[in-house]
Amino acid sequence: MIFELQHTDARCKARAGKLSTDHGEAPTPAFMPVGTIGTVKTVSPQELRQCRTHIILGNTYHLYLRPGLEILRKFGGLHRFNGWSGPILTDSGGFQIYSLEELKRADEAGVEFKSHWDGSKHLFTPENVVDIQRAIGSDIMMVLDYLTGNPSDFPTAESAHRHTLQWAERARVRFTATPPLYGYRQFQFGIVQGGIYPELREASLRGLLVIGFEGYAIGGLAVGEDAQTRRRITGFCTERLPAPYPRYLMGVGKPGDILEGIELGVDMFDCVIPTRNARNGTVFTRRGKLNLRNTGHKTAPQPIDESCECFTCRNHSLGYLHHTFRVNEIYGLRLATIHNLHFYQTLVSEAREAILKDNFLAYKKKFLQEYREA
Amino acid sequence: MIFELQHTDARCKARAGKLSTDHGEAPTPAFMPVGTIGTVKTVSPQELRQCRTHIILGNTYHLYLRPGLEILRKFGGLHRFNGWSGPILTDSGGFQIYSLEELKRADEAGVEFKSHWDGSKHLFTPENVVDIQRAIGSDIMMVLDYLTGNPSDFPTAESAHRHTLQWAERARVRFTATPPLYGYRQFQFGIVQGGIYPELREASLRGLLVIGFEGYAIGGLAVGEDAQTRRRITGFCTERLPAPYPRYLMGVGKPGDILEGIELGVDMFDCVIPTRNARNGTVFTRRGKLNLRNTGHKTAPQPIDESCECFTCRNHSLGYLHHTFRVNEIYGLRLATIHNLHFYQTLVSEAREAILKDNFLAYKKKFLQEYREA
Repeated sequence: MIFELQHTDARCKARAGKLSTDHGEAPTPAFMPVGTIGTVKTVSPQELRQCRTHIILGNTYHLYLRPGLEILRKFGGLHRFNGWSGPILTDSGGFQIYSLEELKRADEAGVEFKSHWDGSKHLFTPENVVDIQRAIGSDIMMVLDYLTGNPSDFPTAESAHRHTLQWAERARVRFTATPPLYGYRQFQFGIVQGGIYPELREASLRGLLVIGFEGYAIGGLAVGEDAQTRRRITGFCTERLPAPYPRYLMGVGKPGDILEGIELGVDMFDCVIPTRNARNGTVFTRRGKLNLRNTGHKTAPQPIDESCECFTCRNHSLGYLHHTFRVNEIYGLRLATIHNLHFYQTLVSEAREAILKDNFLAYKKKFLQEYREA
Repeated sequence: MIFELQHTDARCKARAGKLSTDHGEAPTPAFMPVGTIGTVKTVSPQELRQCRTHIILGNTYHLYLRPGLEILRKFGGLHRFNGWSGPILTDSGGFQIYSLEELKRADEAGVEFKSHWDGSKHLFTPENVVDIQRAIGSDIMMVLDYLTGNPSDFPTAESAHRHTLQWAERARVRFTATPPLYGYRQFQFGIVQGGIYPELREASLRGLLVIGFEGYAIGGLAVGEDAQTRRRITGFCTERLPAPYPRYLMGVGKPGDILEGIELGVDMFDCVIPTRNARNGTVFTRRGKLNLRNTGHKTAPQPIDESCECFTCRNHSLGYLHHTFRVNEIYGLRLATIHNLHFYQTLVSEAREAILKDNFLAYKKKFLQEYREA
């Protein structure tokens, strides 16, 4: 088994567990920084570890286009290519294709799309997406899913769910029929779709459980629905997913969203927010977000957050960070990224500690009392 | 004294010495990476040290414009602003003003120039450039000099030299009349000008020695003259500069130029080549330069240089570096910068070891036999 459920909070559904892969373990709840094209932008593998990152995410769509499978195979997979020796999860490309503005066409066979990079045409099928992730060599791979934005009408959501489920079955067949390429184990997660409709979510979920995966993701959220709907659908799914399997809420989110997911029984998260916001000069603190470009910071001798123990806060002032953004020093992008990743990893790590003490709800309440979304 | 001459090679003029400042020591020959606006682009102070950097350079012109003196004073100087706790040398702004394409006007008073940043007008005088460097708090400050490109005709070079010498005297008066602002010592270096004319160089040098500084720079080179002329003028100056004082060849240069400067008795160098080339994807090896963008590297599993012990070569392959430049990953700029700085610092450190064994000429010969300028 990839997952060990260690403890469920006595007062809510929040869970503490452990993912075990041949590249090491990751305590859960886990936050996975996004290493789009193989690199979590601006930071080194060593810095990721110093931020207490245990597992990262790679984007199959981007890695397939560049560096491409031939190079990844020659290197013996993504770990040896990018130097991150811990666990890696790869998404299936479903979300990137959904986000592409260029023409894409889905039918039973799969999804045809045009590369955002050079305009070339490609086809992703449930089968070749398994093969691609074999070549990437991620520890956890996701099945190809079919996404629609929220809210979609029932027939659209239903069709997307049906595609996703049929594809999941084909993906599992391919997964079972093919060996990993580099001598270590890979696991495969299914993805629950069904938009904002509980009956579709239920059908999706039951279908996936019949097929059987090592873990289950809740997809098709954080794509336009309001917070209450997301909460409702997430809770609906976690109530029905069997306890021994890891649960992954894809693409979520802000600090408050992550705490809410944890409360509902989610174990794994990924989101570009901490890294992308950092590069835009937005950093997280216990009291909310700060904009480093704000001229009010220009003479500030204190760090972003006095209580923070990240490299950035131990070594550099808010005033200096403001300066690096003002004069476009690349070093500043790294400093902000390190701080934000440390903030997110501290959040899930503290949440875990609280869960182990049956104290998650109090932790969440205290965090949200201090933390203000701008 | 700021400088201790420890040894002169028995077979040539190459010297090994030590700069001592209140922010620590720097063995010489020393290479100073350029931290233009306070930051050596893309790298942390810790990484600078890991590359065996002992002293860095800051640009007075850039620091004066941004972050500006008010902020630097509030922070207690550049060291506390940017987090580099070792020695810092600042240039005088003379070279940046010389390089400005926008209108600049020099007369006896000083140089008037337009900011490249916001078009505002400013005046640098020999006196206020001392004051500015007091506010920056560099360990070593340079006098304001007046530069002409090479070759300039004799009257132009002569006028530039006369300006520079008059300004040097005024700068020294101001330096002597003002205390450092932050409780540690600052030193001041004069700059020999005179273009490609030995008689002007001699007059410049004698004039500076009469005034008396803690060190002497050779300026007005690496601005258009051929290699032979640079060698001739550098050697002319080092033969006449008194042995107990440190000698700094400004803005030089390529690895071979640095070895030549060392052979002629130069102690200190600065240049943007290792850092700027890195950001363009060009890295240095024992056999010459490599272009990381070259598609030939895309599947290369080996590091840039098998024998190199820098962070980049210990952790990442040439193939991965090629990928980071191909997909514009900012992390790659840092990796290339670290490698190039490590290469330059290894070069001067090995040169020093060779000098201490009276073996510099053999070291230089061996290096140049292997190293090919593309």
